[in-house]
Amino acid sequence: MEYIKNRRTIRKYKQEDIAADLLNELLEDSFRASTMGNMQLYSVVVTRDKQMKEKLAPAHFNQPMVMNAPVVLTFCADFNRFSKWCRCRKAEPGYDNPISFLNAATDALLVTQNFCTLAEAHGLGICFLGTTIYNPDKIVEILQLPKLVMPVATITVGYPDESPAQPERLPLEGLVHDETYHDYTPTDIDRIYAAKEAMPENRHFVTINHKETLAQVFTDLRYKKADNEYMSDVLKKTLKQQGFDK
Amino acid sequence: MEYIKNRRTIRKYKQEDIAADLLNELLEDSFRASTMGNMQLYSVVVTRDKQMKEKLAPAHFNQPMVMNAPVVLTFCADFNRFSKWCRCRKAEPGYDNPISFLNAATDALLVTQNFCTLAEAHGLGICFLGTTIYNPDKIVEILQLPKLVMPVATITVGYPDESPAQPERLPLEGLVHDETYHDYTPTDIDRIYAAKEAMPENRHFVTINHKETLAQVFTDLRYKKADNEYMSDVLKKTLKQQGFDK
Repeated sequence: MEYIKNRRTIRKYKQEDIAADLLNELLEDSFRASTMGNMQLYSVVVTRDKQMKEKLAPAHFNQPMVMNAPVVLTFCADFNRFSKWCRCRKAEPGYDNPISFLNAATDALLVTQNFCTLAEAHGLGICFLGTTIYNPDKIVEILQLPKLVMPVATITVGYPDESPAQPERLPLEGLVHDETYHDYTPTDIDRIYAAKEAMPENRHFVTINHKETLAQVFTDLRYKKADNEYMSDVLKKTLKQQGFDK
Repeated sequence: MEYIKNRRTIRKYKQEDIAADLLNELLEDSFRASTMGNMQLYSVVVTRDKQMKEKLAPAHFNQPMVMNAPVVLTFCADFNRFSKWCRCRKAEPGYDNPISFLNAATDALLVTQNFCTLAEAHGLGICFLGTTIYNPDKIVEILQLPKLVMPVATITVGYPDESPAQPERLPLEGLVHDETYHDYTPTDIDRIYAAKEAMPENRHFVTINHKETLAQVFTDLRYKKADNEYMSDVLKKTLKQQGFDK
């Protein structure tokens, strides 16, 4: 399992296709992840077509990985298939509500991570696009997702054409709590974030953005309150449109 | 990666502890999963104490794994630590909204699955408790989770004391879509669910519950509309209480 420890996100890929058999094998194995009541509340849409990538790219803020990767996978929370099965079997499904969305999203995200691990074990590189839930309405339209299907994660996959440095992580003590949550004092925060803040690349990041602190780069430029509020509205509307909040 | 393919959920554990060093190593390695903007929007609460397990058990509908496993892990979506860091660094966090909950839940669930894979690779067995999001309010209270922290997954972990049969999965064609979502016709549904419905244990399940179809066991007994609606209300209230929907 050393490669899980040593993994890096890969954003540049060789112009080499992924064989359909390999992709199917990785997907099939990934579906061995835990799933609620063995309902398998997910679907995966595979994008290989250039025109489809061109349509998807803007929904991912034109991050170049979408066009550059041979395969783009959109993992969806899916209560449509299960509900259709119920209706075909004289059973009345009751999954048009927020808890069902979260159950299906959970199933889908466990499969997503399982797929990433399997892909990396086979020499592929992946990039997780967090943008999926920022523009779910656009992705729903492009991929023609019916009601009770909601995109929750997008992965670009391909053979790596770069070997970036491994990014830092916070120390374990900052993330793990014994028995109960021990809330952070300002001294804890100083200690937990010290190494991250001291890194030359992070200091450079502060300088070039003309900010006083690294945190300000996040709050003022990268993940702004106004954007989060706008995207929360889109998320809520799309969940309603997709039938998860009747 | 054969063991991912061959894995099973383990619900019975040997009365053998998990060494703290091993658990910490697995957690640390699991934190290598993709995380939005490297913000690591999660916390893990480790439960080993018997009294704490007794408190948690009812929140998980007294599933015996909670008391039986040496370790119970609650993975939480956490924007508290990051927001505290912002406030300590003259930055104003804007993460008290639904999109931030979903971002943090995504981070937490990727780590959860990564942990499960690592644990299984080391000979441990895990069970994913879907009950976490049914009673989040109780878990918040027991684990003393502050605002902007929300439990999203619970895993029981221990050395396996059973080797159950591997449950069935739907055929790949039922889960994967090429380029766009191809919605299911009744004929598709028949084909995709045929093997599942034909299994002796599933037929037995229908008989002992005096139902006409397997789907009715799900809609009428296991995952009922009324329960889903009740739990959706609890989820919404808890998200509001935890500050994710101001």
